[in-house]
Amino acid sequence: MMELSKRYGVFFLLICLFLSLASQLSLARPSRKLKPCKHIVLYMHDIIFKGNNSANATEAAATSPVGLGPFSFGQVSIFDDPMTKDQNLHSPPVARAQGFYFYDMKTAPSAWFAYTLVFNSTEYKGTINVMGSDFIPAKTRYLSVVGGTGDFFMTRGIVELQTGGFVLYEYFRLKMDVKLYECY
Amino acid sequence: MMELSKRYGVFFLLICLFLSLASQLSLARPSRKLKPCKHIVLYMHDIIFKGNNSANATEAAATSPVGLGPFSFGQVSIFDDPMTKDQNLHSPPVARAQGFYFYDMKTAPSAWFAYTLVFNSTEYKGTINVMGSDFIPAKTRYLSVVGGTGDFFMTRGIVELQTGGFVLYEYFRLKMDVKLYECY
Amino acid sequence: MMELSKRYGVFFLLICLFLSLASQLSLARPSRKLKPCKHIVLYMHDIIFKGNNSANATEAAATSPVGLGPFSFGQVSIFDDPMTKDQNLHSPPVARAQGFYFYDMKTAPSAWFAYTLVFNSTEYKGTINVMGSDFIPAKTRYLSVVGGTGDFFMTRGIVELQTGGFVLYEYFRLKMDVKLYECY
Repeated sequence: MMELSKRYGVFFLLICLFLSLASQLSLARPSRKLKPCKHIVLYMHDIIFKGNNSANATEAAATSPVGLGPFSFGQVSIFDDPMTKDQNLHSPPVARAQGFYFYDMKTAPSAWFAYTLVFNSTEYKGTINVMGSDFIPAKTRYLSVVGGTGDFFMTRGIVELQTGGFVLYEYFRLKMDVKLYECY
Repeated sequence: MMELSKRYGVFFLLICLFLSLASQLSLARPSRKLKPCKHIVLYMHDIIFKGNNSANATEAAATSPVGLGPFSFGQVSIFDDPMTKDQNLHSPPVARAQGFYFYDMKTAPSAWFAYTLVFNSTEYKGTINVMGSDFIPAKTRYLSVVGGTGDFFMTRGIVELQTGGFVLYEYFRLKMDVKLYECY
Repeated sequence: MMELSKRYGVFFLLICLFLSLASQLSLARPSRKLKPCKHIVLYMHDIIFKGNNSANATEAAATSPVGLGPFSFGQVSIFDDPMTKDQNLHSPPVARAQGFYFYDMKTAPSAWFAYTLVFNSTEYKGTINVMGSDFIPAKTRYLSVVGGTGDFFMTRGIVELQTGGFVLYEYFRLKMDVKLYECY
């Protein structure tokens, strides 16, 4: 009898192991509480083209504001901005942000972004694709990571945006907290 | 012998339980038949800017048609449109649709859309990011929900579009059936 | 005793089966090595509108280059391009690519794309939505498949781009290896 209960005991332990495995599996999709599988913090530096600063400019307006309110509604800007690991514009870039944004509100400065983070360093090779709305007056704004390639194959997640330095019509810096919740 | 078969019976039941659990897990990804985990129906109201209607306008063309066919090919429009729960333009907005579209066919009115649904109400706070092709002559068109933030963290799904009211060069209304198949 | 070890043997086999099932489940998300669940190879043909070729043109610039470098920085182009199964422009189209791209680098020809592959044939009905950066000098570039509808409901994956024929300011052909890693 003792031998029997010991045998049951072994199976009971194994069964518990399976149940715990199975419950983990059924939670494979991240909950809102889940921690990112990867977290990258980068600063994007955007220097606006004014016609005479080709050497430095990293962004240019492709269209003009349409005159709907005072917040540049309708202006589409295209950028190829360096990304650094700290706030310093002159730090070595570790990635580039390539894409566009446009102003889309007549009552507030608000932009809509779609861009690709392009990594080509010893640390990472690949891209992260991002889109979403950037209501600039909010301290933190949230964009979607909708896909990736290379080291970021098929990734998904969130980019948290915060504006840092800002010089009207000249320069702005965006802190990006890239939080990836699906890594392969 | 009876005792033995009883013992086997217990394990057999447990094994069946595991197998059934495992098969459910392997089907965790939604099939085409799957019901949405969330279904939101909203109406987008778009009032076109004509230069003298700043107070009402919610959309403006950032570029002009290029002259390739009669369906405004090449015109890019940017919008910040109120979304209501019913068809009435004057109902209280429960979200905004912020983004752009452009006409892209020379033989038919067809647009390409990318936009963010921005929710900031007691019901929902967060965003839903959408993109896809809108062949306007079709009764129903299908766009992709490619990501979300806040209450819609990491969501994916489909937006079904149907045109409602339409006044050429002035106004259109789009019914959006937002069907989310991945909720976190 | 023999009977006992035989009995253990049976359970041991079943346990191995469960463990192997469980480990497969925990790998349900595709690894980088995973094979696509669907692989479609198509060729996109893009004929640039020059003002007098309406009959043939499939793409037109909606904005002009801004003068930041020699690589058309800031030019936004909109297209509705036929997709064929082989390299021949005159083969019957099996899909269309509808979307836009813009040039975004001052030191190299590089474009940013977002578009929808629209299928409406006996083989496939539905759409595939794509976005990403296209650094043209690279032999192969990688974009993200961020969603789909119809036969491509909720799909995700990668598009591999390679430039084929190319006539400056007139025509280019892009080979697209559409590799889908999530199929429903």
